[in-house]
Amino acid sequence: MKRIGMLTSGGDCQALNAAMRGVVKTMMNSDEEVEVYGFLDGYRGLIYGNYRMLQSQDFSGILTKGGTILGSSRTPFKTITDPDENGLDKVKAMKQNYYKLNLDCLVILGGNGTHKTANLLRKEGLNVVTLPKTIDNDLYGTDMTFGFQSAVDIATNCIDCIHTTASSHSRVFIVEVMGHKVGWLTLNAGMASGADIILIPEIPYDIKKIADAINKRKKNGSRFTIIAVAEGAISKEDAKLSKKEYQKKLKDSKYPSISYEIADKIKQVTGEEVRVTVPGHTQRGGSPCPYDRVFASRLGSEAAKLILDGEYGFMVGYKNREIVKVPLEEVAGKLKYVDPDSSIVKEAKMLGISFGD
Amino acid sequence: MKRIGMLTSGGDCQALNAAMRGVVKTMMNSDEEVEVYGFLDGYRGLIYGNYRMLQSQDFSGILTKGGTILGSSRTPFKTITDPDENGLDKVKAMKQNYYKLNLDCLVILGGNGTHKTANLLRKEGLNVVTLPKTIDNDLYGTDMTFGFQSAVDIATNCIDCIHTTASSHSRVFIVEVMGHKVGWLTLNAGMASGADIILIPEIPYDIKKIADAINKRKKNGSRFTIIAVAEGAISKEDAKLSKKEYQKKLKDSKYPSISYEIADKIKQVTGEEVRVTVPGHTQRGGSPCPYDRVFASRLGSEAAKLILDGEYGFMVGYKNREIVKVPLEEVAGKLKYVDPDSSIVKEAKMLGISFGD
Amino acid sequence: MKRIGMLTSGGDCQALNAAMRGVVKTMMNSDEEVEVYGFLDGYRGLIYGNYRMLQSQDFSGILTKGGTILGSSRTPFKTITDPDENGLDKVKAMKQNYYKLNLDCLVILGGNGTHKTANLLRKEGLNVVTLPKTIDNDLYGTDMTFGFQSAVDIATNCIDCIHTTASSHSRVFIVEVMGHKVGWLTLNAGMASGADIILIPEIPYDIKKIADAINKRKKNGSRFTIIAVAEGAISKEDAKLSKKEYQKKLKDSKYPSISYEIADKIKQVTGEEVRVTVPGHTQRGGSPCPYDRVFASRLGSEAAKLILDGEYGFMVGYKNREIVKVPLEEVAGKLKYVDPDSSIVKEAKMLGISFGD
Amino acid sequence: MKRIGMLTSGGDCQALNAAMRGVVKTMMNSDEEVEVYGFLDGYRGLIYGNYRMLQSQDFSGILTKGGTILGSSRTPFKTITDPDENGLDKVKAMKQNYYKLNLDCLVILGGNGTHKTANLLRKEGLNVVTLPKTIDNDLYGTDMTFGFQSAVDIATNCIDCIHTTASSHSRVFIVEVMGHKVGWLTLNAGMASGADIILIPEIPYDIKKIADAINKRKKNGSRFTIIAVAEGAISKEDAKLSKKEYQKKLKDSKYPSISYEIADKIKQVTGEEVRVTVPGHTQRGGSPCPYDRVFASRLGSEAAKLILDGEYGFMVGYKNREIVKVPLEEVAGKLKYVDPDSSIVKEAKMLGISFGD
Repeated sequence: MKRIGMLTSGGDCQALNAAMRGVVKTMMNSDEEVEVYGFLDGYRGLIYGNYRMLQSQDFSGILTKGGTILGSSRTPFKTITDPDENGLDKVKAMKQNYYKLNLDCLVILGGNGTHKTANLLRKEGLNVVTLPKTIDNDLYGTDMTFGFQSAVDIATNCIDCIHTTASSHSRVFIVEVMGHKVGWLTLNAGMASGADIILIPEIPYDIKKIADAINKRKKNGSRFTIIAVAEGAISKEDAKLSKKEYQKKLKDSKYPSISYEIADKIKQVTGEEVRVTVPGHTQRGGSPCPYDRVFASRLGSEAAKLILDGEYGFMVGYKNREIVKVPLEEVAGKLKYVDPDSSIVKEAKMLGISFGD
Repeated sequence: MKRIGMLTSGGDCQALNAAMRGVVKTMMNSDEEVEVYGFLDGYRGLIYGNYRMLQSQDFSGILTKGGTILGSSRTPFKTITDPDENGLDKVKAMKQNYYKLNLDCLVILGGNGTHKTANLLRKEGLNVVTLPKTIDNDLYGTDMTFGFQSAVDIATNCIDCIHTTASSHSRVFIVEVMGHKVGWLTLNAGMASGADIILIPEIPYDIKKIADAINKRKKNGSRFTIIAVAEGAISKEDAKLSKKEYQKKLKDSKYPSISYEIADKIKQVTGEEVRVTVPGHTQRGGSPCPYDRVFASRLGSEAAKLILDGEYGFMVGYKNREIVKVPLEEVAGKLKYVDPDSSIVKEAKMLGISFGD
Repeated sequence: MKRIGMLTSGGDCQALNAAMRGVVKTMMNSDEEVEVYGFLDGYRGLIYGNYRMLQSQDFSGILTKGGTILGSSRTPFKTITDPDENGLDKVKAMKQNYYKLNLDCLVILGGNGTHKTANLLRKEGLNVVTLPKTIDNDLYGTDMTFGFQSAVDIATNCIDCIHTTASSHSRVFIVEVMGHKVGWLTLNAGMASGADIILIPEIPYDIKKIADAINKRKKNGSRFTIIAVAEGAISKEDAKLSKKEYQKKLKDSKYPSISYEIADKIKQVTGEEVRVTVPGHTQRGGSPCPYDRVFASRLGSEAAKLILDGEYGFMVGYKNREIVKVPLEEVAGKLKYVDPDSSIVKEAKMLGISFGD
Repeated sequence: MKRIGMLTSGGDCQALNAAMRGVVKTMMNSDEEVEVYGFLDGYRGLIYGNYRMLQSQDFSGILTKGGTILGSSRTPFKTITDPDENGLDKVKAMKQNYYKLNLDCLVILGGNGTHKTANLLRKEGLNVVTLPKTIDNDLYGTDMTFGFQSAVDIATNCIDCIHTTASSHSRVFIVEVMGHKVGWLTLNAGMASGADIILIPEIPYDIKKIADAINKRKKNGSRFTIIAVAEGAISKEDAKLSKKEYQKKLKDSKYPSISYEIADKIKQVTGEEVRVTVPGHTQRGGSPCPYDRVFASRLGSEAAKLILDGEYGFMVGYKNREIVKVPLEEVAGKLKYVDPDSSIVKEAKMLGISFGD
């Protein structure tokens, strides 16, 4: 008999349901008797004891469904050890609910922040298995996270649409792709859609190099230029600021997001008309792509196997096309960045894509 | 022997290529010999004599292609009778190029502004046949315009994506749909995607009614509310302003678009967190949907028939499921609005959708 | 207080759920108190008293969901008045279950066969309101049926895919589109995807004319020919047979479907290699397209209004862009065919499409 | 100065154009002067000297386009060393055309058969670089081939559509997925779409085990069963036959494909109604998915780099998320099968999927 608690935390993404279905179907297909408690709205459900018991039929038909049947919320790691507004010790509360339900293990699906808290719970003595969920693909210790490929598909479709309209008019188009800290999503969606310029946080840009790329295209007879800009794109000058200084600068900015600032700069330097599109949260939504469905199902299945084998304290990740277990302490608090010298960036440059550097 | 000139003007949309293919395939399949001149970048090509002769193979494979192979530009009707920056009389120049090429007819694809200029050219003695292109479906004299259904599909997919992410978090989501003057696109995309509140220019909103709708949903246990907002949505108070006053107000606004202002107001009145998504120009892009491909092909085919029959001065439109010819003077300068008392609005309200009125 | 029973009958299609949601949301938003009983698996549920009471939440999130939450089955009209294998009088049983539940009205969603039975129940004194569901768009009394546009989208996407592969090889491709009796689906999907030849039941074909069209394309330098074939396509010779003779011929045929026979004939006459693709039931599945979601919701809403007003015995249809009520006796047993002399067929021919006639 | 010849051979697939664009864009962006000759219709163009010189603009806009701008054909390796019907020595002819154009290298895009011929040409002294193209993902020496993920997407969408219709009726549905020799495509599409049973060539099936799986689902209250069947699925008895015996059996079979035979067997054993869908060549068509576009572009880019560096005789493959060069002699003539004991198969089984074994 195994009693597991499950929760999804942080910004939602595609294939959360597929992953949970994978865990539960595998456990229910095993010889072990299983009870599954779903905590609602992320860690908040674990803190306040808000949960419901889940049955086999709760997982029927959700393989292709976006979002999360458990709901989610952002519970910042920074404040997790602080008491809540009523003085409740949140970590203690989570432990109490864990023990009250007599759980064998918590299955936690989340991204970077979520993993920090999961690792804290592990250190507090709870059995934890985690699954790497994020459209950013920035989790350390795994080649891939689920949600990523689905988000690439949506962002790519978006730039595809802009492509046909851009080629009809003579304009510069910016599409702002999600990613505050890392550029995987922008890099892949940009390459997939034939973007001419790609700006990512890991490669600070020089506005003059961007202008050069636009002007070179114009000289070669191209009517338009498409720029894929990560939310966290940063100029070479701004990259020299301290984190604090830069955050203040962003906060005081008159622009709703960095893309609008870049658009203005380009207009000033080149005289070109620039249009900005912000697909925003659509990148987290919709049915997971087939790649993510298979991948999340496989991860879920192997997570269940770990639990059935009594192996705890791991993130289930992906390395060299095999599902692997990675110790949580190796993962928590680290990000996987795009290496400016990696082969994929070099290949993109060989294809003629400018990174503004 | 027929010599036709063709141009696409105004904001681009899906199925422009399908419509042009329809015209040219039909003419080339007829017994008549045909020469087709494509003017580049809308009226600008006609003004400055910028064109190329088009062959059968130019139209091969473009049925499914977004954008326009001729390029487009916005040439405001307001200034069409003004000389250009070099003192050129634009109307005279268009006539000269028409006569120089010895054209039998101009085929003009465009929306509201385009039709005003087309009608001017007709009054100047040129033979003109037009095709109703716009994602706004706001052209007078036709039940439907091509581009509309494709844009509905894209905006709907966008709201679908937001739906899954909204249901995972407890939030209010605004999706800004194109449409500065009319609400057809927002109304249809909103109904198709199950939006809870739809705000369109034709039905000014009361922020309190919006708040009521949000609170009612909350009381009934719904975690989220989705609002489809047309770019030209307007509050009851603002609707009382003169056009001039309101435009000044918009210009001085600190918000990049009306959705951000509505988001702020909702937050103030309800305390709810609100997220805004702006799919923007993606709504004009991508491959036309099958409906638009059939529809634009049919329109193009009948436009060709008019030309072969020597019937000029018409827009080819759609009435009661038949392709019809509508005299240009009946169309030019008029818009087709959503009637707040129409059955589709009543049906939307019966379904529980709030218009904030 | 209104008590309604609801059922979906016949081959399933997209937007059945959207339509039912439209009925129930409208009734629940009215001042009337409402009870909804869902009969399972079509008329079978009504015959054998197999139903469940439906709540508001049963209709949440189903707007975009394909299939039918009530299940469906084919209950042939031919045998509806015959006793079942246990001697049960089916018509009597349906009436008994109707009266036992004290229903005010039956809401029946279905196609041609379904409407015959619905009309029978009306004549037996039951209150009935029906909704026109079929991917075939062949229901008499309405310009459009829901499911049709979604099926057009799927069949078109299928032919689009074949298009890219066909243009890479030198081949003739046949795509078999659903439609045993009418050609609306094949005609629209064929036009939308740029099929070169379209074969529909209403226009019997001559294999020599098909060969001519293929050879003409080849002479003009086209590498491939794409043929959209309705399941019920028929040759001119076969069209002369009596219905009985033809059905015997079909039954004795060595081909799994007509497309394979046509493929063989083309190969014999032209020597070309022919490939057949049969998308089959996929054309009924998947999420309804935005057009169908709006349309089915509107129909459902107006059906609810009829019930609330106590108006029974109607199919809710669509005429000239308005939702209308059509007396059931005018609808039952009649099909809406493609008229070979209609403008859409003429337009298709003007575009260069061959119908093999 | 580099002169390259390029050809695409075998069944077409998605992202062929993307890969060729990657090669050519990279070469044209380099300091080297480049001339590109495209041989038409696969090896046939090389044999008969049918080619055209390709310019930069030939590669504009083809990143997202399915098919191949060069055309393709199947030129069986078996007969490549035989003279053609006019006595022409095909291998000699290919060499002559290579030398006549003074080529530095041939870029050959293809699957298994294509690689055998490419290796032959290498052994004959020609410089060859190849790219792994196939929806089957069965090429030895690379973790992935382009076309595969796009085909998974199409097959998955197809089964998704069947899912909604299956759940509305009580039936067994078979979807026949491409793959005569290997099961990668069926395995992935089946897992992605939640198929209940997956039959692949590498795991011979027992019809009784299939019946058991169907009956178990029925007992658990499931209305339907979905079976993904690879074209090359084989029963345990047939797997015992010699290759020759089995091919004779297939040839003499009354069924158009294996799925129809399996359908009949299931009906006999379980009494269930079974429907077969054959998406066929659609699986090769349409726009490549974003994954394939990025992947094929990267491969093309690295192929160009090899040529620029004068490194020949390699297939450009993918290993552990890096693009690698693999000696052609290691690749040619070998297939990459699904290992029945691999972790992905085990995971699928843990998820409750039956392989009928």
